[in-house]
Amino acid sequence: MKPVLSARYELPSWVGSKVDWGATYASDAERMALAVELSRQNVEHRTGGPFGAAIFERESGRLVSVGVNLVVPAHDCTLHAEMVAFSLAGRRLESFTLHGPGLPEHELFTSCEPCAMCMGAALWSGVRRVSFAAHGVDARELGFEEGPVSPEDHRYLAARGVVFEAGPLRAEARAVLALYKEGEGVLYNG
Amino acid sequence: MKPVLSARYELPSWVGSKVDWGATYASDAERMALAVELSRQNVEHRTGGPFGAAIFERESGRLVSVGVNLVVPAHDCTLHAEMVAFSLAGRRLESFTLHGPGLPEHELFTSCEPCAMCMGAALWSGVRRVSFAAHGVDARELGFEEGPVSPEDHRYLAARGVVFEAGPLRAEARAVLALYKEGEGVLYNG
Repeated sequence: MKPVLSARYELPSWVGSKVDWGATYASDAERMALAVELSRQNVEHRTGGPFGAAIFERESGRLVSVGVNLVVPAHDCTLHAEMVAFSLAGRRLESFTLHGPGLPEHELFTSCEPCAMCMGAALWSGVRRVSFAAHGVDARELGFEEGPVSPEDHRYLAARGVVFEAGPLRAEARAVLALYKEGEGVLYNG
Repeated sequence: MKPVLSARYELPSWVGSKVDWGATYASDAERMALAVELSRQNVEHRTGGPFGAAIFERESGRLVSVGVNLVVPAHDCTLHAEMVAFSLAGRRLESFTLHGPGLPEHELFTSCEPCAMCMGAALWSGVRRVSFAAHGVDARELGFEEGPVSPEDHRYLAARGVVFEAGPLRAEARAVLALYKEGEGVLYNG
């Protein structure tokens, strides 16, 4: 096998028909509904793990980027939904950070509480708020690892202007995790 | 600006002339020397931040992937050197994890102690050991943020088979961080 010197990924083709890029997402509920819908579609289309995320301008409600988990199909452990959303947002703004002079505030909505990797990335991304639907404990109960994430970590980020908080649609997001687990059961045990 | 739906990056072109893919990297010192040399070349060529990383098969010393920090040129906060190395290794093996049936053990050498994001990614990557040259405290002293990383985090990973340890060439790696800071000083204040 030859060395690999470059990497590429793209969002699944169904994203085009499921995401309204021109819409204004006014409320937390609307923003989270998009993140959770992305997680569900990713399971139903079998295009990756049961996680979805989206980044919005805080004030305007303008949608900046979306992400879904692409780890298994892309052979890439780094491609959690949040990471994809951070990466695509920076590339769209042509800025490695979403926080800086002349930029509006940005926030991430994600269908599940970020794992240790995605929590760290939230700090580098420049988002000012992270709102999650399913909780880490929900993910763990269903067999998903979250890595080392503690309340102290969230306090560390809050002290640097990045607030983590539980948002709406926990039950709906948890149902997607359960759906994935069920489907995988069929897939691997069939 | 139109939504961005895909992402791509590649290693800088100088990597081709600086990395011997056919060599056997027998010792920790040889493995770390490659990681630190990548960090230095990335500064000298002005192709990204002062960090380099490489993944090896533990027993054979075969080089699997390399990474350098590409955050600023790629407009992508996720592209730390370690993340690039994890991503390219998984893609080369066509496996989202480097740990599994039929795979040899893998380990990451990195020029600086991993930040919170890269520490979390180490758990997902499947490497069994992470060896770092410069310490987190060195990076912080020179003005680089590391995010929330604690000894408890390292214990959490160790309990799951991923050992973090201080390796050789700390002074050499620290010198690269200082070199970058100096260069940036000239660059921005000139």
